[in-house]
Formats: sequence, C-alpha cells, structure tokens
Amino acid sequence: MNKFDKAAGLLKARNIDGWLISCNEDSDIHSTYFLGIKSHARHFILIDANGNHQVLAVEMEAPMIRKALDQAKMKVNVRVYKSGEEMLSFLKELTAKPRIAVNFGEDSLQQPTAYADYIRAGELQSLQKIAPKTDFVSAADLIMAMRGVKTPEELKALREAVKMTLDIFEAIPKWVKVGMTEREVMAKLHYEFFKIGEPSFEAIVASCENSADPHHNSSARKIAKGVFLVDAGLRYEQMSSDITWTYWIGGNPPQDFLDAYHALMAAKKISNQYMKAGGETAVPDQKCREYLASKGYDHKKLFIHGLGHALGYEVHDIGARVSSVAPKNSVFEENAVYSNEPGLYWQEKWGIRLEDDIIIKKGGCEQVSYNPVDPILF
Amino acid sequence: MNKFDKAAGLLKARNIDGWLISCNEDSDIHSTYFLGIKSHARHFILIDANGNHQVLAVEMEAPMIRKALDQAKMKVNVRVYKSGEEMLSFLKELTAKPRIAVNFGEDSLQQPTAYADYIRAGELQSLQKIAPKTDFVSAADLIMAMRGVKTPEELKALREAVKMTLDIFEAIPKWVKVGMTEREVMAKLHYEFFKIGEPSFEAIVASCENSADPHHNSSARKIAKGVFLVDAGLRYEQMSSDITWTYWIGGNPPQDFLDAYHALMAAKKISNQYMKAGGETAVPDQKCREYLASKGYDHKKLFIHGLGHALGYEVHDIGARVSSVAPKNSVFEENAVYSNEPGLYWQEKWGIRLEDDIIIKKGGCEQVSYNPVDPILF
Repeated sequence: MNKFDKAAGLLKARNIDGWLISCNEDSDIHSTYFLGIKSHARHFILIDANGNHQVLAVEMEAPMIRKALDQAKMKVNVRVYKSGEEMLSFLKELTAKPRIAVNFGEDSLQQPTAYADYIRAGELQSLQKIAPKTDFVSAADLIMAMRGVKTPEELKALREAVKMTLDIFEAIPKWVKVGMTEREVMAKLHYEFFKIGEPSFEAIVASCENSADPHHNSSARKIAKGVFLVDAGLRYEQMSSDITWTYWIGGNPPQDFLDAYHALMAAKKISNQYMKAGGETAVPDQKCREYLASKGYDHKKLFIHGLGHALGYEVHDIGARVSSVAPKNSVFEENAVYSNEPGLYWQEKWGIRLEDDIIIKKGGCEQVSYNPVDPILF
Repeated sequence: MNKFDKAAGLLKARNIDGWLISCNEDSDIHSTYFLGIKSHARHFILIDANGNHQVLAVEMEAPMIRKALDQAKMKVNVRVYKSGEEMLSFLKELTAKPRIAVNFGEDSLQQPTAYADYIRAGELQSLQKIAPKTDFVSAADLIMAMRGVKTPEELKALREAVKMTLDIFEAIPKWVKVGMTEREVMAKLHYEFFKIGEPSFEAIVASCENSADPHHNSSARKIAKGVFLVDAGLRYEQMSSDITWTYWIGGNPPQDFLDAYHALMAAKKISNQYMKAGGETAVPDQKCREYLASKGYDHKKLFIHGLGHALGYEVHDIGARVSSVAPKNSVFEENAVYSNEPGLYWQEKWGIRLEDDIIIKKGGCEQVSYNPVDPILF
C-alpha cells in the first residue's frame, strides 16, 4: 500500500479529515517521506482521509513533483500557486475541514512529542487565522503509526544501506593516510554516499583527541598516528544507517586503548540481549553501564551519552529513548530499528565508540552491522 | 566586533533583554551562525543584552562548543544539562527576563517575516509555559540587522567562495563524460565542496530534459548528449555561493539553444544595471522579462521563477525579493548579496539558466561570478 493511502486509513480510524504538511526550505522531512523527492520552495501536502490528496506547489517545482508522484503511482492532485494571495486562497480551500492534523509537538520541550514538532510557530499561527473554524490537532500519533516500526521493505532497504556502508568502512584503511585532513576523509565518504543515496548525517571523522567529542565536526586537522574514529551512515531508499568504527593508525595501540575497545565490544554484546520486543528500553543502557563499571570504568564520567537511538528515515528517528533514564513503561517494539553505540571518552586524549545498527525482534535482536572484534590497525 | 557583542548592542538599542535561540537537530541555522560549529543535540543560546551570554548544551557536546567559542575568543558561559528536568530548570533561569527575542516569524504565511520563523510551534508554546511573565518578541528585526547586508569580512569570504566554485565549474568539461550518472557528478561536486567547506545546497545536475525542472533532484539518469546544467555552490566561512552554468555536451548545439542562451546573457546584463543601492527590487526582473519578450520568448510560460534571491549564510538568504511582484517600497541595500539567474524552460525538452552572484553597490552592482559568453561545448 502506498504511504498516502496508508496515512488516509489512519486518518479515517482517528476521525481526522486530513493531514497537512507545511514545508519550506526542507523544514519538514515528511515532505520527502511522502513525495519521494525534495521540493525546496514553500509547499503544502494534504493527505485526505477520503483519498482526495493534494499538493500545493510553486510553478517551477510542480512538474517535478507531478513526475515523481506519477512514477510512484500515487494519485495526488498537484496545484500551482503563482502568488502569495493564490497560495492563501488555495490553502483556505484545503483547510476547510473540521479536523486537520499538523506536525506539531504540543509543548515539545516538556512533553514527549518533540519528534512531531516540525511546523514553525508562525506557520501554525497563520493556519489558525486562515481556517479559524478548523480544529488543528497534533500528528504525533500518526507519525508514530507510520514510522515507529518498519515495514519489510524498509527493513530490506536498511539492511542494504548497512551493507553498503560496511563496504565503505572496510575500505577505509586502503586509502586513508596520515597527513590527510579529517575534512578530506569526510568529503570522500560523502562522495561514496552521494553516489548511492546521501549521507544520513554529516560524517564524523576524528583523529586522536578529537575523537573525545562524540559529535566532533570534521576539521582541517591533519590525521596523525593514534585513534581514528569514523561515524557515518548512508540514507538509501529512505532508510538511514549509522555506524561507528574506531581504528588505530600507525603501529600498535597501547594496552589501555585495547582494554577499553574490548570492554565496549563486550558491553555491546551484553546490552544487545536486552534489545528485544517488549523489553524495557532503559535496561540495555543500564546493563552496559553495569558491565563497564565492573571493568573499572567510571561510566558517569566517561560514557556521556545514551546507548542508542531509533533509526529510520532520519538518523535520529522517532522511537523510545534507549537510555537508563527512559521511563519504566517504555518498551521496544518488534521491527523498530535502533543503534547500539557504547562509547568511552577521555577529554584531551581520545574517545572510542563502537556503533552498530539492530532490528528489534521477538526474543532478541538482529544486529545488522558489525564492528571488528579487534580494532583495525593500519 | 564578534557576533555576540554585535547582537547584544542591537538588543540594548531595542530595549530587549536577550535573544534566545532554541535548536534541535539543526532546526535553526543561527546556532551555527553564532557558535561557528554544528551542535546537533537540543541546545539553547542566550545572547544577553548585558553580555552575560549563555549556552545550554548536553554533556557530550559541551566540551566541543566550549573549544569552538574559546578559539573564536567569544566569552560565553556553556552550561550542561543532564536531564530534561535540569534543562527546564536552567531554561527557567535563562528566560527570567522581561523581554526576550526568539526566532519567530509572526503569522509567517501572511506576513513578510517568514525568514525569521525557525522556532517550532511546540517549542514556543513550552517557552511561554516555562516563563509566563516573559514577553517573547520576534527576532525578525534583529536577524535582518545582523544578516541583511554583509560586512567587509563576509564579502571577502563570498568572493573567495565564488572563486573556488568557478574553479570547479571550469574543470567540469575535463572529467564529466557521457554515460556517467547525474548523481555521480553531483557526488563529485560535493566532494570538492566538502574538502573546502560544504555545499551551499544539494547540487543540481541535470541532463537533457531534466534541465527543464529548475529544482531537479540529481538522479540515476545517465548523462546523454545535449543540454547539461549544473547549479551548485560552496559555503565557505559562512558565506554561500550559488552559480548555474548551462553546458552543451557532444557536437554543436542547435540554433534555438544558442539563441536562448544569448538572450539570457543579454537579459542578465540589462537587469544587472538595475541592481543597485536604492533601486526597486521589482525592476530588474521586469526589465529582464521585457527584454526576453522583445526577443519573442513567452516569459510568463518559460521563465517560471523570480530573477534572484538574497545570498549569505543560507543559499536563500534573508533580503528583499528580486521579482516583478515585489512591493514598490522594496529597495536594494548597499552590500546586500543576490543571485541574478534568468532562465528559460521548455518541459520535456530542456532548460537553460545562467546564474551569477552579485553585490549591491552605489550606482550599480559588482558581479562576482561570471557565465561563459558562449556556452561551453564538450
């Protein structure tokens, strides 16, 4: 079933008349999620509970959108607006319905629906002025129903994305050399990803002490001997991989590096056992931290992020937090996809992170990617 | 003067106590604009009118943010929040001021402050709940004052970005071959851009009839003989270039292609004359269209976008619309930067666009980039 029709079914079941996506300059990823292409100018998508789906687009993007929808066999009417007045007038028509869902995460800093909060404050205000009688409700529940667990096709795409990403990680020792800049390596990784799809996020390439920043921005620093961390992923057919390998360049790593590496491998293996359908999402992180503590690592100081996050269309996708602070009632759902990425970071020295992608199954998980049992030395 | 202090001066002059930037998953480009690096997790920046600037960040990003601010000699206090409760509690402190600006474009679909509309609807709602006594005002005027016209340093960076982009455009005939896919070429362009900075936007590589879509998504289509359009740019030191060249691959182009190409070159030259400080922003587009009409082109049908847009930190930056439908009182400001990009598009056949970047000066403009007088054939 295509996404428009699937969403229409969800709308009907919830007694909501339509789902309006308001997008400008790529402000809402649900535009590409539904259209299959990137429309950059201001446009609106109305998914209609009764199947009368509409897109409102500027003249220069409408033909491209029509072609993409035709190719995907989506029956959607694409209308063109030629001025601001025309846009508002069409929008008035589209929103003349009792209940419309918008991608709004109510009170998003305090409530757990931040994942649905895409619409800008001024856009929602405008919609309420344009259609004062319409009840605009949050699409949070719809987004979760569409994207929280993955379809067989999505899981297939994810496995393929992971496979292609691993090929790229495996090849790294063949072309990365001491003296190249982190940016050069990042650029080359992006080149590989863009040939197939696109990077899931800006690749993190960190040499030596830069690896101590989990979200290090790849810089003009020249790669030196020592820790070499790469955190990168490929978005392919709308599914994002996210993998981190930690290499060692030049000679043999010191024992404390090897010990930490092996402790993280073991911690991942242990935590994986708790990533299963129905399992509490707080537990894997707790078990990981318990193990690290048993090996003498001060996890509160050294493991400064949660164990994982949901993966999907976005690299930080919607889904339960995989963190020891997750609420008790938060559980894993079958066919949800997560990262499992324990890390240990010593500021001014180095960081090690071993990140894999897993699919939640009944009784356990499928680890789709892998990390080398021993660090790759080159 | 650094950006924090410049912004603080603007706040003081406007009797506003602070400017709060709320950012999550790169939702507001003003985070990178101020911090100089990309912080991806949820964080807040408070620019304080009295100079007590603050950043509220997660544990894993705080050291990286501190290092970036130290390197840029910005005196900013970076605080760490370790839980949602702590984030809210710190945020309550930060926002306990009478008037705080946020990046909110009031009624943004109907009012001309859409450029300031970054904060998500649910985030603004939360802020209003956290600080019910605070008057949250729109930062639109501040954003315009900071970014509407460019500083000498920014213009220098822009000129450098343009120069490096042109080097890449000039080299295209040396390595692009019939049979490569559009994506391969896009990936290679991105590789070049990421080595230096980053692509200003996803490069548009369009072969033959795909060039008729101004925002074509580079595809797996193999490049064939005929029109070959590349629209790409480099973001370097926070300034974005945006250039389009239209090449012809394989043999000699037909006369109708050459005629249209030359008409666009002449139309650009004419419209450039009206891109000067104090000039109405509607006029260049009008003059361009008049010229195209005089050469027999049905511009309403064939030239399906405005003549240009502001350029700067973002590729579609803030600034007056360069379009014949711009209001009468909309004028060019000295040292604002725009694209001048006339185009003609025949669906199912081809499109031609010749885009250059210009700086508004008194009495005229400085065209920073260039397009070949005759199309490059290769």
